[in-house]
Amino acid sequence: MEMHAFSGFELKAQGILQRLDSGEVVIGDGGFLFTLEKRGYVKAGLWTPEAVVEHPNAVRQLHMEFLRAGSNVMQTFAFSASEDTTESKWEDINAAACDLAREVGRKGDALVAGGICQTSTYKLSALPAWITHLEEPFAETGMNAGPTMNGNIGASIVGVNCRFGPTISLKTMRLMKEGLQAAGLKAHLMVQSLGFHTPDCGKGGFVDLPEYPFGMEPRLATRWDIQKYAREAYKLGVRFIGGCCGFEPYHIRAIAEELAPERGFLPPASEKHGSWGSGLDMHTKPWIRARARKEHWENLRPASGRPFCPSMSKPDA
Amino acid sequence: MEMHAFSGFELKAQGILQRLDSGEVVIGDGGFLFTLEKRGYVKAGLWTPEAVVEHPNAVRQLHMEFLRAGSNVMQTFAFSASEDTTESKWEDINAAACDLAREVGRKGDALVAGGICQTSTYKLSALPAWITHLEEPFAETGMNAGPTMNGNIGASIVGVNCRFGPTISLKTMRLMKEGLQAAGLKAHLMVQSLGFHTPDCGKGGFVDLPEYPFGMEPRLATRWDIQKYAREAYKLGVRFIGGCCGFEPYHIRAIAEELAPERGFLPPASEKHGSWGSGLDMHTKPWIRARARKEHWENLRPASGRPFCPSMSKPDA
Amino acid sequence: MEMHAFSGFELKAQGILQRLDSGEVVIGDGGFLFTLEKRGYVKAGLWTPEAVVEHPNAVRQLHMEFLRAGSNVMQTFAFSASEDTTESKWEDINAAACDLAREVGRKGDALVAGGICQTSTYKLSALPAWITHLEEPFAETGMNAGPTMNGNIGASIVGVNCRFGPTISLKTMRLMKEGLQAAGLKAHLMVQSLGFHTPDCGKGGFVDLPEYPFGMEPRLATRWDIQKYAREAYKLGVRFIGGCCGFEPYHIRAIAEELAPERGFLPPASEKHGSWGSGLDMHTKPWIRARARKEHWENLRPASGRPFCPSMSKPDA
Amino acid sequence: MEMHAFSGFELKAQGILQRLDSGEVVIGDGGFLFTLEKRGYVKAGLWTPEAVVEHPNAVRQLHMEFLRAGSNVMQTFAFSASEDTTESKWEDINAAACDLAREVGRKGDALVAGGICQTSTYKLSALPAWITHLEEPFAETGMNAGPTMNGNIGASIVGVNCRFGPTISLKTMRLMKEGLQAAGLKAHLMVQSLGFHTPDCGKGGFVDLPEYPFGMEPRLATRWDIQKYAREAYKLGVRFIGGCCGFEPYHIRAIAEELAPERGFLPPASEKHGSWGSGLDMHTKPWIRARARKEHWENLRPASGRPFCPSMSKPDA
Repeated sequence: MEMHAFSGFELKAQGILQRLDSGEVVIGDGGFLFTLEKRGYVKAGLWTPEAVVEHPNAVRQLHMEFLRAGSNVMQTFAFSASEDTTESKWEDINAAACDLAREVGRKGDALVAGGICQTSTYKLSALPAWITHLEEPFAETGMNAGPTMNGNIGASIVGVNCRFGPTISLKTMRLMKEGLQAAGLKAHLMVQSLGFHTPDCGKGGFVDLPEYPFGMEPRLATRWDIQKYAREAYKLGVRFIGGCCGFEPYHIRAIAEELAPERGFLPPASEKHGSWGSGLDMHTKPWIRARARKEHWENLRPASGRPFCPSMSKPDA
Repeated sequence: MEMHAFSGFELKAQGILQRLDSGEVVIGDGGFLFTLEKRGYVKAGLWTPEAVVEHPNAVRQLHMEFLRAGSNVMQTFAFSASEDTTESKWEDINAAACDLAREVGRKGDALVAGGICQTSTYKLSALPAWITHLEEPFAETGMNAGPTMNGNIGASIVGVNCRFGPTISLKTMRLMKEGLQAAGLKAHLMVQSLGFHTPDCGKGGFVDLPEYPFGMEPRLATRWDIQKYAREAYKLGVRFIGGCCGFEPYHIRAIAEELAPERGFLPPASEKHGSWGSGLDMHTKPWIRARARKEHWENLRPASGRPFCPSMSKPDA
Repeated sequence: MEMHAFSGFELKAQGILQRLDSGEVVIGDGGFLFTLEKRGYVKAGLWTPEAVVEHPNAVRQLHMEFLRAGSNVMQTFAFSASEDTTESKWEDINAAACDLAREVGRKGDALVAGGICQTSTYKLSALPAWITHLEEPFAETGMNAGPTMNGNIGASIVGVNCRFGPTISLKTMRLMKEGLQAAGLKAHLMVQSLGFHTPDCGKGGFVDLPEYPFGMEPRLATRWDIQKYAREAYKLGVRFIGGCCGFEPYHIRAIAEELAPERGFLPPASEKHGSWGSGLDMHTKPWIRARARKEHWENLRPASGRPFCPSMSKPDA
Repeated sequence: MEMHAFSGFELKAQGILQRLDSGEVVIGDGGFLFTLEKRGYVKAGLWTPEAVVEHPNAVRQLHMEFLRAGSNVMQTFAFSASEDTTESKWEDINAAACDLAREVGRKGDALVAGGICQTSTYKLSALPAWITHLEEPFAETGMNAGPTMNGNIGASIVGVNCRFGPTISLKTMRLMKEGLQAAGLKAHLMVQSLGFHTPDCGKGGFVDLPEYPFGMEPRLATRWDIQKYAREAYKLGVRFIGGCCGFEPYHIRAIAEELAPERGFLPPASEKHGSWGSGLDMHTKPWIRARARKEHWENLRPASGRPFCPSMSKPDA
């Protein structure tokens, strides 16, 4: 699989490295663009994060939800602003994005990372800009998105983000791991898959599917799909596990719950979630109580309720 | 189809009646329980609304999103408290729920309705309680859920809520309408379908499906499904159109956008949404730009991305 | 469900009645038109049986296969010839059809029934013709296809044939049975379902599905589907069980094998078929040997291998 | 894809080479084992061809159907008999198989090829036996199934047979072609795909799918699928195009019809088949008449009628 800009990236930052070096599992957050689009604050197509200044409560709330769900990293809901496009407006937005992420991050044990929205308003240069408002100690990570996995520039964390669903993302991580080993390189592994199943997408990823972006619902991962993803990523040696478009707070919680045995603790939001459906064990209907167990959810092949629809599409390009 | 308690209900209230009598289309809101469960504030199985006191910002935010999306009615995120179960704690919760709904409702042109959470903690009597904290002028509606459509008690609005997806809910409305006509009764019609496709559920509704409640994702309606639902409801003469479990803010926006020609205005959240995908018309990839049109989304049969899953399930009971 | 000409019919004949009256299970045969079309001897669209004179070996062979599979009734591969359309050519064809059916029938313990091809070449009158070449003792049955189930003309066997798959056909039989009971009528029950699954067809049956007649393959029943059909028909009290379009010889064998415990014998063709896949028990691969058991085939949800196709269609009319 | 014994093979024979060298398209036949199993003459699991002596009419009839459908090659319905297993019984069977194939082949313009049944009764050596009863001039081809494409032994025709459906078989042919070109070798290309869709099978092919061999129905190719297969094979440069398990006579006819423009003639069985559904153009129902055109069948995504079944399976091994 060819790696595109923004599909592969490298992270180099103190805080995260300390955590990963010490053997900790770091949990990322999920997708701001898709989630806030559904909440009414982001326009699909533009995918710009002006909500941070227009509706800061909505952005703050989503940060809070990811934090409660177990995220150790708050990605700023900011812009990729190249020099041509740097107008004061975008500076303000990115500054506000950083403020929001830092504010919420401080409420928990979370680092702040410079997220870069993939806007189609401006054509990006191959090597995206650094977000300058993130400085130590708040800006604990910077993100460098390169078109290929490029070990020789000294990346400490390599991985994939966005564009592909859990299965393809993990397959790519396996190739990356093998590539690193073959090259004698060492790096922490990171994965932030889509929250959508995309077995049928081509090299361009999910944007080429006819369902993108307004008909992706049937592809949305369940929490059990994500627990499986987290477990497989962990087995593969990936220690920075998060999500991208389609990942909602409960998907992040699913990562944190799956890896609770290894990490030794549950996230705050698990106070509202019984592990493997155990919250159903008091239901008055016996057949619903019977779903309060791991076997039910692990073996479920969830129906689409859409008998007139196929299970795969042909990418448009 | 047999009507169960909570599947059929009647509304009798001044504010809503005035609007409906004047020919206005009234848009309801969506599902608090499912949406807040995914955000980390409601425990599935218990389905209790203590979030209104524990995390009021999260509840307020969701009210705001529905208001922005076009809801004319804020349903209180409150309890069904029968006498046995009336402890001061529940009183506080219901009071807080009303306060939140009123607070947000005032920011727009929205009425407040007494929503009743369907908790399985306590067995409900057949005729649920009235929510006493809702008094005029704030409590503009009260809700009377009866086990059958019961015209002779003078209901002014009859309809169905929850349990079934758009297709079955609309089919039921058609039967109700015919029943009313046959009986020579007059009432406004209301529908608040699930946001899930459930062609395969039995009489008990979606709770009997093996996917309930943690594997419903592939059944989630797209915004286009909901525009179709809104249009069909409108054609049928239904003038109070909303949603229930599974309905997120963007689904409510879809109702408001579909009926904008009749109502004469778009909801606030449409500032972040191009009608029929028009927000894609500036995309750099021509095949994505080609999706910026009604035909694409109307004819799309969205794939599940799940070739190992069926399209229908057998209800557990 | 409305009954159309050729969907409901009545049989009145000595031989069959004797067998049914004595409590015997009578097994019908399968579909000549569809099967011989695939073999190259019938033209879809015309659906005429001139193969009986043009290629008698091909017709004889199919009769033989149904006989070996367990059929107790050889339906003549003949024509519905109303007076307008009676030309000598058709007379010859029907005579030849009867000869072939009798010839093969004599090789086993099989009756001969007057089958009527549903040709679209000529518009049929509502009450189709009797086939005059079938006389006692060879012509043991005559077939009278009426537009409705018409108890008062003294039918001794009532049932449904063609147009709908196993599930709908059996549901119809249940209604017929209840109707007979309600009317205080007594009659033997007969069912000859399609060999295709048609849960999505409308009142007109499978001909209205867009797959008819050249894309029906994915709907084709497995032998296990037919064993289930035979068992359910038997439980319902149906004692004349056969098939129609889509039913190949091995489907008839499946009926005979499913009901072998009740009938006390297996059909000749079972010498080439291990019950419930037992023929696989010597396979060199253990995972294929593991399929040599009832549980495997009973629980199998066979995949279509067609991820780009839906599981249901909308009828064209 | 790894090539297994019986998946790749080479043909070296006079008659076929003359035809292929002259630029002719040679059409193979279809699957005897699966087809005769359904007709009641072959036992699945054993897959032995004793029908040639026990029921020669049934075997002759199938040869006739393939000949009528357009086959230029009659594969003997014979055995793979290694020395250990050579008993007089098998000699007789293979002799009879050759007689039948020759007898029918003489009725048309068809060559006779030594087919080898893949029996699991006896473990085969990697290099299968030559069938000794086929001698010039009757035995125009011999078949040498080797574990890999082995250009250096002087094969004149290379290709794949059985185990995989049309898509994978053609993909393999593409690789073979590229391999031949890269190695500077020249050979005629041959493909005999399964008549089943198997996008989900692993390296072992269709036998590892849980549906094998008694639940393959939903995977069965339509005639239109096969026309597409024939066209793609032709475009790829394959000039010996046939089928294997699952291929019925009408599938062979579909190859002959698709390539009729190139070959200049239709097969005999096309007298009973209107090209692209044209036989429906006289139907009394207008929506069925509307199916009498290429566009309908080419664009049809045929539904399975099985909403409770998935579209793909996981191979058992």
